[in-house]
Amino acid sequence: RTGWTDLDVRAVDTVRVLAADAVQKAGNGHPGTAMSLAPLAYLLYHNVMEYDPNDLEWFGRDRFVLSAGHSSLTQYIQLYLSGMDMELSDLQALRTFKSKTPGHPEVHHTAGIDITTGPLGSGLASAVGMAMAQRRQRGMLDPDAAPGESPFDHHVYVIASDGDIMEGVSSEASSLAGHQELGNLTLIYDENYISIEDDTDVSFSEDVAKRYEAYGWDVRIVDWRASADENGGGYVEDVDALLQAIEEGNKVLDKPSLIVLRTIIAWPAPNKMDTGKAHGSALGDEEVAATKKILGFDTDKTFEVSQEVIDHTRSTRGERGKKVHAEWQRKYDAWRQANPEGAKLLDRLLARELPEGFAEAFPTFPADEKGIATRAASGKVLTALAPVMPELWGGSADLAESNNTTMEGEPSFVPKDKQTDMWQGGPYGRTLHFGIRENAMGMAMNGIALEGLTKVYGGTFLVFSDYMRPAVRLAALQELPVTYVWTHDSIGLGEDGPTHQPIEHLAALRAIPGLDVVRPADANETAVAWKTILQSVDHPAALALTRQAVPTLDRDEYASADGVAKGAYVLADAEGETPDVILVATGSEVQLAVEARKLLKAKGVDARVVSMPCREWFVMQPDDYQESVLPKAVRARVSVEAATDFGWSDIIGDAGRSVAIDHFGASADAATLFQEFGFTPEAVVSAAEESIAAAGGN
Amino acid sequence: RTGWTDLDVRAVDTVRVLAADAVQKAGNGHPGTAMSLAPLAYLLYHNVMEYDPNDLEWFGRDRFVLSAGHSSLTQYIQLYLSGMDMELSDLQALRTFKSKTPGHPEVHHTAGIDITTGPLGSGLASAVGMAMAQRRQRGMLDPDAAPGESPFDHHVYVIASDGDIMEGVSSEASSLAGHQELGNLTLIYDENYISIEDDTDVSFSEDVAKRYEAYGWDVRIVDWRASADENGGGYVEDVDALLQAIEEGNKVLDKPSLIVLRTIIAWPAPNKMDTGKAHGSALGDEEVAATKKILGFDTDKTFEVSQEVIDHTRSTRGERGKKVHAEWQRKYDAWRQANPEGAKLLDRLLARELPEGFAEAFPTFPADEKGIATRAASGKVLTALAPVMPELWGGSADLAESNNTTMEGEPSFVPKDKQTDMWQGGPYGRTLHFGIRENAMGMAMNGIALEGLTKVYGGTFLVFSDYMRPAVRLAALQELPVTYVWTHDSIGLGEDGPTHQPIEHLAALRAIPGLDVVRPADANETAVAWKTILQSVDHPAALALTRQAVPTLDRDEYASADGVAKGAYVLADAEGETPDVILVATGSEVQLAVEARKLLKAKGVDARVVSMPCREWFVMQPDDYQESVLPKAVRARVSVEAATDFGWSDIIGDAGRSVAIDHFGASADAATLFQEFGFTPEAVVSAAEESIAAAGGN
Repeated sequence: RTGWTDLDVRAVDTVRVLAADAVQKAGNGHPGTAMSLAPLAYLLYHNVMEYDPNDLEWFGRDRFVLSAGHSSLTQYIQLYLSGMDMELSDLQALRTFKSKTPGHPEVHHTAGIDITTGPLGSGLASAVGMAMAQRRQRGMLDPDAAPGESPFDHHVYVIASDGDIMEGVSSEASSLAGHQELGNLTLIYDENYISIEDDTDVSFSEDVAKRYEAYGWDVRIVDWRASADENGGGYVEDVDALLQAIEEGNKVLDKPSLIVLRTIIAWPAPNKMDTGKAHGSALGDEEVAATKKILGFDTDKTFEVSQEVIDHTRSTRGERGKKVHAEWQRKYDAWRQANPEGAKLLDRLLARELPEGFAEAFPTFPADEKGIATRAASGKVLTALAPVMPELWGGSADLAESNNTTMEGEPSFVPKDKQTDMWQGGPYGRTLHFGIRENAMGMAMNGIALEGLTKVYGGTFLVFSDYMRPAVRLAALQELPVTYVWTHDSIGLGEDGPTHQPIEHLAALRAIPGLDVVRPADANETAVAWKTILQSVDHPAALALTRQAVPTLDRDEYASADGVAKGAYVLADAEGETPDVILVATGSEVQLAVEARKLLKAKGVDARVVSMPCREWFVMQPDDYQESVLPKAVRARVSVEAATDFGWSDIIGDAGRSVAIDHFGASADAATLFQEFGFTPEAVVSAAEESIAAAGGN
Repeated sequence: RTGWTDLDVRAVDTVRVLAADAVQKAGNGHPGTAMSLAPLAYLLYHNVMEYDPNDLEWFGRDRFVLSAGHSSLTQYIQLYLSGMDMELSDLQALRTFKSKTPGHPEVHHTAGIDITTGPLGSGLASAVGMAMAQRRQRGMLDPDAAPGESPFDHHVYVIASDGDIMEGVSSEASSLAGHQELGNLTLIYDENYISIEDDTDVSFSEDVAKRYEAYGWDVRIVDWRASADENGGGYVEDVDALLQAIEEGNKVLDKPSLIVLRTIIAWPAPNKMDTGKAHGSALGDEEVAATKKILGFDTDKTFEVSQEVIDHTRSTRGERGKKVHAEWQRKYDAWRQANPEGAKLLDRLLARELPEGFAEAFPTFPADEKGIATRAASGKVLTALAPVMPELWGGSADLAESNNTTMEGEPSFVPKDKQTDMWQGGPYGRTLHFGIRENAMGMAMNGIALEGLTKVYGGTFLVFSDYMRPAVRLAALQELPVTYVWTHDSIGLGEDGPTHQPIEHLAALRAIPGLDVVRPADANETAVAWKTILQSVDHPAALALTRQAVPTLDRDEYASADGVAKGAYVLADAEGETPDVILVATGSEVQLAVEARKLLKAKGVDARVVSMPCREWFVMQPDDYQESVLPKAVRARVSVEAATDFGWSDIIGDAGRSVAIDHFGASADAATLFQEFGFTPEAVVSAAEESIAAAGGN
């Protein structure tokens, strides 16, 4: 079935030897899985996946996700064998500074890598997002093609380890994948019964196949260990059976496919196979030699690759790549010809350009003392963008109405038979329903962004950003332009109490490199925030939005909300040239600063109010702009934010004071909580007076 | 089977009316589940659970975990009916400031509440920890008693919602519970097919019963909806079947029990039942009236409880409590008499006192230029404590050897048949194996701490503290003395690269109220850190430990490591009375500050080195101590920490400089990374000179 010759078998054994040698040279790493999964990886790259070694960025390619990222050699060696900008010298530089072969695969760092993996469960969960995005992209551009006939059809293959399967995020994502009937997703679970604490029996005894059946997956078991004895004797790597399972799984179009592949880690290393040691440590010179001997390699050589092997793999794969790419190109050209509008859209999406009418699509909100919640303003912005920006889609982790994440009138992204009274739609819909699975939502968003043609947002309560932090970090690390819609952003959410009230979250999120944290003060700031965020193509952003209504400021009286794009701006200036004090506020607390300024004025204190929705944007401004907003000479400064003061010293300096909350909240209405916890104009006035005194003024 | 009379049925209906009225009065809240689960809650408190309304803290009681914390009325109303320090006026004060009835149940706030819940999945996952702790406590104090015969036997009951079941953390914890064969755990899953986005069909279609069978649970289905039509007609709340399922589940001693209970949310509210609206909003006056009419209550009255009902429930439950408590007391007295040593231990544990020989048990480490990793020192401390402190136990999320979390020679906590070659032990063992399930580990630790007799620690890599943040926050919120052993605490972990290298984590953790973050500089600081942490009884602590070796400082030359207990101390002072500059460092970077001090001295700059392992401990010291370490007059300050500088301005002030890293790391050996990313004595010297200049000195 695989058609493998002796040369292919030799190539697979070469993979094992390269893996052992590379880790041995580095002195540390993960040889075991790269050795035992050599036949699987070879099969995927040689027989199964459609890609083109001569065009690594080809968007019609199948995607490969090594969720078991620690086994990065599994992928690096296949890139080398395929001639995908990876040479033997790169393998020899494993885990060294600036090499193409870091400890875990890194997208945008090494060509041919579709995703950064390593944190367990993350790859698998993001792959679910890739598979979802593939369907949405097809629906947007080529909805009527028969299955497999569209240039927008491709498959997502995942290799996962025991650790991936144990992590909760993979449970969430796998449940979602089953629900979404993602027939374009194949997960190969390397069940080798070994993790870092050795035999997984000590902590893991579930029936994974049954669990995935419960999720609605198509499940097949390929047991290479079936006839093996304790020492690995009788172990048969039946690649034909494996290929058959993959192909049969692919025929099931309405279910994701799980193949439970039972392997012996580090096979055929005579002493280290089937042990925890082989998972995460170099095998040692003796064991490497013993392995080479078993496989018929020269024990005195390292990184031994016969010219015949590398010529074979590169030419075979290059030819195959050319062929599948050419077949795709025919479909693609035909599609372009038949769909000039679609082609125009696609070209724009590939160029990562904004649509015509983008800037004009944003609503402005009239001044209104009572105002609206910024979450509500966000919802209006999204609805206004819907017709202009087809690539924009998103949803919530079961909080659609609370997060205001639904673009009104848009269909849900859900299999036909899973529509509900409230949510109508279909497989190509636009409103995402992640269920109560925040971390999977975040990881899926990453996968969606990695597919590249759409822009996704996802919502939950700000406090539950904690549940999805691993995903947020990976978005920042991978430089993915996803947007988090985190509402209920302070004690202002009221009665749900301390479990639901964020305190430390704004600070904890600001600490993440490469994430923009944006907390607009009113409806118009919310619109500008969205406008600024959607222009980014290379990093994630988070919106922190209120549950409670906040006044929509009168922009005739106060400065334009366009200042939001600069991260901070003078909303209401002092009357004199140099303010007595600067009040720096964010979000719902800007109104307190505005009120405090009036009270201070009555006391003869000349205050400036700075609205600072995004610190990250502000520090990117030229020095002179920063100085114009926060002149160094004005040391009397007060921060006002209903959150911890942790990190505010950077802005307010030694003489500054913070109106903040450094303890957990309580269950009561918002007005009571703001009063009880000291968020009042009067408290801001007191803090201002203290800061002025500390600065040596007045 | 339940023996319920008409009075009991009336009491159950009273629960529904109270739930509807309470939310209506508050104006917001979650009435639906409290109404439809009224029979279940009544059954648990009336027929099933062993507790004593007259001794709420009785440690022999069964534990109750309302994982569906949003339905807090489910529990509050039962506390009221049982007369457990809860009155009608408290129910009327639902969700108001300082009431006993906050939006979600809060332990240590409301008597009779065993755990704070609300973040979905957290209760269920913590309940798994409770059940584990119950077994460990029994093993420690009364290992030979027959099942059910020990005063240390009790059961843990959990009510979970769809949201709980969808969250990944409950998957992790449920897999662990099945693995651990926790026969003392009963989970009742309220499958009502409704979440906030209405019909769960839109995002959730798995077979939960099958999934739990795959985890190794005993699963039963009680389907009250079986004969119901679309409008709730024919809906039968068969409490006898439910009780039978609970009882039969309890007979299975080697499996946790899942009962899938299919209900109609908000039943019998005629228009709102079975809708998302009934989940999280007040029903409205009309619907409340209609419901009262159906149930035969006066539509003009609110909070209507007949004297007969409340007399019945309180007297019945009081009597039952007295009886079960007395039965337990006989067992307990007999146990005390037969086990004087055990009784002595128990008394100490209940008093939360440290053991004799505690202070003496800690190792000290000789000065050593090469030194050892602080993770290794931590392992030695734990092993030294093992014989002295039997209540101490812990483990890792599959990183035992990396985290050095194993007390050498101690048995594993694992069912007999799940021991492995590497890990021997039994059901009463001491070394915990959480598997690759960090968040469940954290939640289980909370449950263990809530059980109250043991002290638990758990390890993973610092970067993966992100995975368990929801649990860490709940530990802080619940004031639980658990300890996190987070190793590989910087880019110093080396080759695993940016996915594994923490940057923002120390800052993000310091932002959490009530969590102590401790980063010791060497082996002796690690010992003092553990000593200080273990003295706490009311809040969590996190150790950030190195992978790489750090020098063990010569304490004859430098100040005693006892200063760690104060959070920060002068490790090496300037020669003059007032230092030219203060170098504030933590963990592995303290050695850089020490080296920099020498280089500065050669340049004629008089530097003080402050080791600051724990900011939270430092700010609790008296002002004069803080001033003695960081005199306000010395504005030239440098922080040295291989992490983001976010938050360091609080310490170093306007003239300060940070030697820090504000971007993601890279894959290479530690020495290269420290050099490339600017962590060298020379860099500290430059920063010191800059800061001196900024402070206007030299």
